[in-house]
Amino acid sequence: MTDAAVRPTKPATSKRTPAGGAPTAPHTADEAHEARIDIAAVTDLLLGTWADTRREAREMVKDPALWRVDGLPMAEHRERVLEQLRIVVSHGGSRRAYPKEYGGLDANGANVSAFLELVLADPSLQIKAGVQWGLFGSAIHHLGTKPHHDKWLRDVMNLDLPGAFAMTETGHGSDVAAIGTTATYDVDAEEFVIHTPFRGAWKDYLGNAALHGRAATVFAQLISGGVNYGVHCFFVPLRDENGSFVPGIGGEDDGVKGGLNGIDNGRLHFDQVRIPRENLLNRYGDIAPDGTYSSPIDSPGRRFFTMLGALVQGRVCLDGAATTATAAALTIAVTYGNQRRQFDSGSGTDEVVLMDYARHQRRLLPRLAATYAQAFAGDELIKKFDGVFSGREDTPDEREDLETLAAALKSLSTWNALDTIQEAREACGGAGFLAENRLVGLRADLDVYVTFEGDNNVLLQLVGKRLLSDYAQQFKDADAAALARFAVGQTAGKVFHGAGLRRLGQTVTDFGSTARSVELGLRADQQHDLLSGRVQQMVADVAGRLRPAAKMPAADAAALFNENQSELIEAARAHGELLQWEALTDGVNRAADDGTRQVLTWLRDLFGLSLIEKHLAWHLIHGRLSTQRGAAVSRYIDRLCARLRPHSQDLVDAFGFAPEHLRAPIASGAERERQHEAREYYAALAASGDAPVSEKALKKQKK
Amino acid sequence: MTDAAVRPTKPATSKRTPAGGAPTAPHTADEAHEARIDIAAVTDLLLGTWADTRREAREMVKDPALWRVDGLPMAEHRERVLEQLRIVVSHGGSRRAYPKEYGGLDANGANVSAFLELVLADPSLQIKAGVQWGLFGSAIHHLGTKPHHDKWLRDVMNLDLPGAFAMTETGHGSDVAAIGTTATYDVDAEEFVIHTPFRGAWKDYLGNAALHGRAATVFAQLISGGVNYGVHCFFVPLRDENGSFVPGIGGEDDGVKGGLNGIDNGRLHFDQVRIPRENLLNRYGDIAPDGTYSSPIDSPGRRFFTMLGALVQGRVCLDGAATTATAAALTIAVTYGNQRRQFDSGSGTDEVVLMDYARHQRRLLPRLAATYAQAFAGDELIKKFDGVFSGREDTPDEREDLETLAAALKSLSTWNALDTIQEAREACGGAGFLAENRLVGLRADLDVYVTFEGDNNVLLQLVGKRLLSDYAQQFKDADAAALARFAVGQTAGKVFHGAGLRRLGQTVTDFGSTARSVELGLRADQQHDLLSGRVQQMVADVAGRLRPAAKMPAADAAALFNENQSELIEAARAHGELLQWEALTDGVNRAADDGTRQVLTWLRDLFGLSLIEKHLAWHLIHGRLSTQRGAAVSRYIDRLCARLRPHSQDLVDAFGFAPEHLRAPIASGAERERQHEAREYYAALAASGDAPVSEKALKKQKK
Repeated sequence: MTDAAVRPTKPATSKRTPAGGAPTAPHTADEAHEARIDIAAVTDLLLGTWADTRREAREMVKDPALWRVDGLPMAEHRERVLEQLRIVVSHGGSRRAYPKEYGGLDANGANVSAFLELVLADPSLQIKAGVQWGLFGSAIHHLGTKPHHDKWLRDVMNLDLPGAFAMTETGHGSDVAAIGTTATYDVDAEEFVIHTPFRGAWKDYLGNAALHGRAATVFAQLISGGVNYGVHCFFVPLRDENGSFVPGIGGEDDGVKGGLNGIDNGRLHFDQVRIPRENLLNRYGDIAPDGTYSSPIDSPGRRFFTMLGALVQGRVCLDGAATTATAAALTIAVTYGNQRRQFDSGSGTDEVVLMDYARHQRRLLPRLAATYAQAFAGDELIKKFDGVFSGREDTPDEREDLETLAAALKSLSTWNALDTIQEAREACGGAGFLAENRLVGLRADLDVYVTFEGDNNVLLQLVGKRLLSDYAQQFKDADAAALARFAVGQTAGKVFHGAGLRRLGQTVTDFGSTARSVELGLRADQQHDLLSGRVQQMVADVAGRLRPAAKMPAADAAALFNENQSELIEAARAHGELLQWEALTDGVNRAADDGTRQVLTWLRDLFGLSLIEKHLAWHLIHGRLSTQRGAAVSRYIDRLCARLRPHSQDLVDAFGFAPEHLRAPIASGAERERQHEAREYYAALAASGDAPVSEKALKKQKK
Repeated sequence: MTDAAVRPTKPATSKRTPAGGAPTAPHTADEAHEARIDIAAVTDLLLGTWADTRREAREMVKDPALWRVDGLPMAEHRERVLEQLRIVVSHGGSRRAYPKEYGGLDANGANVSAFLELVLADPSLQIKAGVQWGLFGSAIHHLGTKPHHDKWLRDVMNLDLPGAFAMTETGHGSDVAAIGTTATYDVDAEEFVIHTPFRGAWKDYLGNAALHGRAATVFAQLISGGVNYGVHCFFVPLRDENGSFVPGIGGEDDGVKGGLNGIDNGRLHFDQVRIPRENLLNRYGDIAPDGTYSSPIDSPGRRFFTMLGALVQGRVCLDGAATTATAAALTIAVTYGNQRRQFDSGSGTDEVVLMDYARHQRRLLPRLAATYAQAFAGDELIKKFDGVFSGREDTPDEREDLETLAAALKSLSTWNALDTIQEAREACGGAGFLAENRLVGLRADLDVYVTFEGDNNVLLQLVGKRLLSDYAQQFKDADAAALARFAVGQTAGKVFHGAGLRRLGQTVTDFGSTARSVELGLRADQQHDLLSGRVQQMVADVAGRLRPAAKMPAADAAALFNENQSELIEAARAHGELLQWEALTDGVNRAADDGTRQVLTWLRDLFGLSLIEKHLAWHLIHGRLSTQRGAAVSRYIDRLCARLRPHSQDLVDAFGFAPEHLRAPIASGAERERQHEAREYYAALAASGDAPVSEKALKKQKK
């Protein structure tokens, strides 16, 4: 406890100081003489439903062979990551998602939970594993049928068959329905002809495509007998035993990227490549030898979205991985902020610990609160995913809820990752810019998370459209209680648990004693009212403005929608934030002891108030807050930051990372040692009587 | 004009469409049939006072030998950048800042203007050049005297003497006054002893330190006769002819960084290293052979800040380089956004050009407006810098204004660079993540700009303190017109031109005809009132809350200041934003033709309203805007975005970059060709009668 030992021992000379977040305020929960969290218990809460699996994965990634090596040339990095995948296989890490009959474990939630921890080793490893087992393998598993499973799943699992997931094209990313690649059925040969008709239809940005992929699951327009049955997925061999492309296939390397350079992203194109009819992954659509098309889903639109929905796992993983990476970055920055000193406060005592600066608290603590919220919301997402994919709760409604939830949470958490890791890097100054301290590498690698597996803006627009259609549905019967029902539909009770049973009021009364909340207003129930009221109002407003579209020519309707696009996306964001807030609140209430619940309630309040501050103008304009209360929001946040400051180390320690996960010299205690050494040097110098006197002091004496 | 040729030709069916930013709205200024900018004239305006020099520098960086090579291993990148510095020397690029008697050009403004364009070649080149000529050489030039110039300046200029600028220590970055390195005068030997007393006092993050530096300008506490005269700068040889450290000097490589890996950053430490007395760079403080200290500046505090102020050039350069890099990123993203299509709008016509999406406009156009504002504000900063450093306007007041202005503008423009380059990268989707498209490289390299040459938060705090002291000064005589005078003091008239003559009202009446402005309110004068009123009120509020500090014990006063730290920093940011807005307005008014002035006035309005929207809650809480007008702000912004959309390509083209500066395949026209090819393919297919019919259409027919 170096900090405690060197703090000025004279008592505070004013009552203001201890409460004010001042440079001499308590540094640790111990010093604050108040309730503190039970760190181990909070770690359990944060690790969530599959805590054991996550611990197992964290144990595995302590192996230095799995770690990112900064500055490794791209070619070596790619080979290293391929090797790392083999290590994951040797730990059984590729089995969890697959059926037991092929040596798998049929454990979807556990699979995602383990997979997201790989980000701590090297995000390239996480994403390359995701390409192999979450996309390529998943397509065979979820879009294919037993013959495909029999033929390929074991090889996929043990990495004897590395593959690419060839969906995106140079010309079409988020708009998968419009891809140009064709798969035309040749009834005489009983083969599909895979073809790239123009440059924009080259498959692009595909992991495993530049080097390691032996095959690919290729999405193409299925054409038979002159009819286009829409996008389907086909198994297409790419390379022979020597790693050369088979005839008809060509490609390019995507080269260096902004991050994830351990993955061999590349482009593929097909020149009349023939594959057997049986290589159509035919779970949702099949072609008989005579070219007749059949599908268990009659509507082409619903069939398309069902196929895409089978791949929602990617978004679930990205959400969790973003939260894990963000938590690691905050642990590094807060730990450093609790050791590093800079600038004499002017009080003549000593240099100030960074975390004592009000600005530093403001920069890091609200982001810490958001990361807690993400962790709890992410666990709800994985539970929902597991429910659907285990078949326990696999209904069309549940699938739709899952997809909406994944889209909302993935967007918020991946954007927050970039924002928070960057703030952490800046909070560590020049040291934060060194690769050895991890922050720049994490940020660079996670950059693309905000646009892949669905561009965040596009995903939020999908969420917004879902909110609009829910809203419209409620009003179909023009019932007086319709708006209230809509409101309930947007809360965690409905979205996480599919129940829709918890009424708004009920939910709120459970949110812990008000005494633990902010004392001067804007308590839990008020936070909830403001956040949920905003979602409802925004959706209602957009819906109202779009109403005339139904009677407009298509072009005008599109223009009207476009005018409301930004606000619809903001409504979707507000919806996601509400869900995070509710998940955090539920999580806080699961804490067993009073101290933990008290501190976490402050953290929840900080999250809620930060959201309200972010959208304060909206709340003022819509009369939800008076200007007087609006003005108080920022002051409450300052007070909560000061109150949480002594708990900052406990709160990041509760993420449960070991030194092998953080690997940042500035968060290793080295800074504390350096500070200690410097202070001892000056103390010894002063004691020796040899310390030079300052010119300033000399001038004062002379006067 | 592919775009024009393929747009649906049927007339809009509703009056709403043309004004609504709809998918079928005009794509180009030509199509919009309205005033457009004179691109070449706007380029002249943007390049500013030293346009010729900037064009010369841009011509030089067309040389591929100066370009960043993505994925180059660090060691090779470092050698390449050293070579590039020699190329810059061969172009005379290192001479501008130095005195004519040593072969220089004595052209400070021109030097900075040319230097900031290097960012287009490789930011590592820009910063390594900055280390050599802007920091190491500048320290000798501005902190040294004639004997030092005679001895070293020529070798510095021609790179025969590469050097490091050894100010920052592992333990002290922004707080330079507290560095630990000592320079103790040994009167018998007439030498200084440079020494590192503990690990935290190692010099750190120094460019040229790991490999290439032959000497360093080392900042250390000057101690003579038992008195510490504070931080001074010393010339210290580092390496011998073979590149080995001379005795007593040690160091370490900082290794891989988040960017700028073409620079050999490293650490240095000194073990009782002896240098001649004459190696003290003695312009602001000297030691006689007998150890007597003398200085032209009596106050140790003022002396320290004068020495640091001599190095303000670095911040001026970073501000300009950040703006250039941001402009390049926006040019890439807007060009791509004007060519790339994605998603059928539902109107059944065709896929929509990205820039037609309201969200896409919202993401890019306000940032484009901010970048224009930065460009004009940056030119004012360089003019002020040139005035001071040429000696033409070198007064203590002017120096202080220059430092405040540089701190404010550098903070805003470097943060905006990261935000905007990232938005540009996301707006380009997966293509934006490829290194070949430049955006990720620019962002990675510019990351550290926000914390070096002064951490932005620390710099803004300095600006805030200056605002507070200006405010206090106005109130010394408790005059009734004091607040009004303070207000005037914060506007461009005073800050840029040192005149303080332009009254608030006058400034505003010059801001162009209101007819060109937003038609429904929030015109130029109102924007200005809101922006300047906010600065004044925030400063007055903080000053009021800090008033009791004068009578408090030091620790309590520090605590009180800390409570107000965040708001003071926000006030400083508001001040910087106001200056940018005024510079943009002045720039717009310099446009000669009506069309240019009209479009740029919309752009200025977009900047002003975006600032007001960003701080809308403040304006509402403080009664500056009614909730009704507040609600209108976002709608005005949407309308301005739609109005500026056809001008977006003109506005980025006016930055004046050549293909050799952009070097991004997605901004080369390749995407336009791909889109064209795809559309021709589908058109030919339709014409041939062989196009497959969609299953959906088939199902409709059957019904």
